[in-house]
Amino acid sequence: MQALVFANGKLEYTLSHPQPKPADDEVLIAVELAGICTTDLEIIKGYMDFTGVPGHEFVGAVEKGPRDLTGKRVVAEINCVCGKCDMCHSGLSNHCRNRQVIGISGRDGAFAEYIVVPRRNVQVVPEAVSNETAIFVEPLAAAQQIVQQVSIEQRHKVVVVGDGRLGLLVVQVLAGIGAKGNVVLLGKNENKLTFAEKRGIQGVLLEDMLIKPEWDIVVDCTGTADGFQTACRLVRPRGKLILKSTFVPDKPVDLSPLVINEVTLIGSRCGPFPNAINALAAQQVVTNGLITASYKLQDGIQAFEKAKNPDQIKVVLEIKS
Amino acid sequence: MQALVFANGKLEYTLSHPQPKPADDEVLIAVELAGICTTDLEIIKGYMDFTGVPGHEFVGAVEKGPRDLTGKRVVAEINCVCGKCDMCHSGLSNHCRNRQVIGISGRDGAFAEYIVVPRRNVQVVPEAVSNETAIFVEPLAAAQQIVQQVSIEQRHKVVVVGDGRLGLLVVQVLAGIGAKGNVVLLGKNENKLTFAEKRGIQGVLLEDMLIKPEWDIVVDCTGTADGFQTACRLVRPRGKLILKSTFVPDKPVDLSPLVINEVTLIGSRCGPFPNAINALAAQQVVTNGLITASYKLQDGIQAFEKAKNPDQIKVVLEIKS
Repeated sequence: MQALVFANGKLEYTLSHPQPKPADDEVLIAVELAGICTTDLEIIKGYMDFTGVPGHEFVGAVEKGPRDLTGKRVVAEINCVCGKCDMCHSGLSNHCRNRQVIGISGRDGAFAEYIVVPRRNVQVVPEAVSNETAIFVEPLAAAQQIVQQVSIEQRHKVVVVGDGRLGLLVVQVLAGIGAKGNVVLLGKNENKLTFAEKRGIQGVLLEDMLIKPEWDIVVDCTGTADGFQTACRLVRPRGKLILKSTFVPDKPVDLSPLVINEVTLIGSRCGPFPNAINALAAQQVVTNGLITASYKLQDGIQAFEKAKNPDQIKVVLEIKS
Repeated sequence: MQALVFANGKLEYTLSHPQPKPADDEVLIAVELAGICTTDLEIIKGYMDFTGVPGHEFVGAVEKGPRDLTGKRVVAEINCVCGKCDMCHSGLSNHCRNRQVIGISGRDGAFAEYIVVPRRNVQVVPEAVSNETAIFVEPLAAAQQIVQQVSIEQRHKVVVVGDGRLGLLVVQVLAGIGAKGNVVLLGKNENKLTFAEKRGIQGVLLEDMLIKPEWDIVVDCTGTADGFQTACRLVRPRGKLILKSTFVPDKPVDLSPLVINEVTLIGSRCGPFPNAINALAAQQVVTNGLITASYKLQDGIQAFEKAKNPDQIKVVLEIKS
């Protein structure tokens, strides 16, 4: 089958990747649409030492699996867990000690014609949610995870640092919970800030921002050392900093503001899919306009190049139409 | 008067620093003994852009001040606050927006014959606490601050990373709260680990440690990029990492374990003095053996050099005997 494969430090398009076969507790999905995320860009730089087919934001149709799922349009949670380790037993199965993560660790992902995932990971996509919206289920669930970990109240002054793919979802989630006037998106791109402003959320250009430790809650969605440094400097004493991006800074970050201001930093990763699907179906979170480029799978290398461009929001791969 | 003064990027001993004069709400203290701390070593590298007399761990006798204090042996909390800003009003006066910090920010410190501090900062030292013990009030209060911020239970597996001055206090505080068998000190120096082991606390050499994310609570007291990196890798999923040292890493630190494992990192700074004085008076925390070198004030430059040596624990300046 067609696939993008990362091996020996190189991403390549191939026509001859073996089609995966589902085990008894797995389903075979024909991928229809997949999104490229910052983690994918890190993976092709060597993150997680991953080799194989990347891609974990996708929607497709079940070709083989239990009768109730066959033919259904589905998405899939990315953590494939053992159900047996201390983490699984303590209700933290996303942190399973033996987990594989679709397209990220130990398991082929979605930048291919077919993908196999555990049955338990699959969630059916309702009619109201198009493919172009469904690929945002995974990053939106990650954005919503913040609210599972941190109590955010209307009185809190909240700033989301980074106006990229993730920041534009996070700020919608937080503005939906806090008072909209207290939630600000901080970024470098006027066109992306405009996206937020159309939804009634204040966007501020970095150059116009007063960098002082006065914000109750700061979410870093930049995935850069500079962005994280800015975030550290914005949190008020005893405030909270949520770190969303898995990245290796390219330079040292001065962490002393975290100690001096006794900041609580909370690492935040994946979230549950059902809430995300509901929020998209109810249009509480809007994704129209977030897809800025679309490529066929055979042009996947170009798609990755495009996704590195800071002008882009979400670049997608059309795999089966 | 005699003093060590840091100015123009250089620490110098002088005989002619002007003796400070107390305002109405201040007291004049003749410094007797002062300790050199990692923050002091950072200050002479440029931290906080401080200029003046450094030194914030000290004990001395009140020479001028209210009658009930005159002649008393005292220590002093280091944050000099305004009492008027949003932080002071919200009960976070240690985070006062307009604060001066003794020997660290905006105010001369204790490496001098005399120091002036606000009356409200002064705490009397009981007879049972010697000068050699009293200089540990400030760092012990900082160690105890961890327990104010994080709930630690006997079942928790706790590791303190760094067997320096601060680590040896922190591990005693935490072992006094948790089950001793569950609290481990991780370090590089056998002689320092032995200090902990004499108090029934397990010491482990870094080279013998299995670096896996299995610890409920990790405290980083290393003040180095490598130490902080190790600490990040030891925290279990959803565990807690307490960051005690204000430092600028000399290389990038991979923060992805914090995100992947959804770790909560808590910056922790100063704590209240009364608890620390009580714990020292009751010998719940032992400081005998922590002072490894002692210098006269006129040999202060040498004392700083000595304090940089990783073999040393606490280097002190005898100012008035």
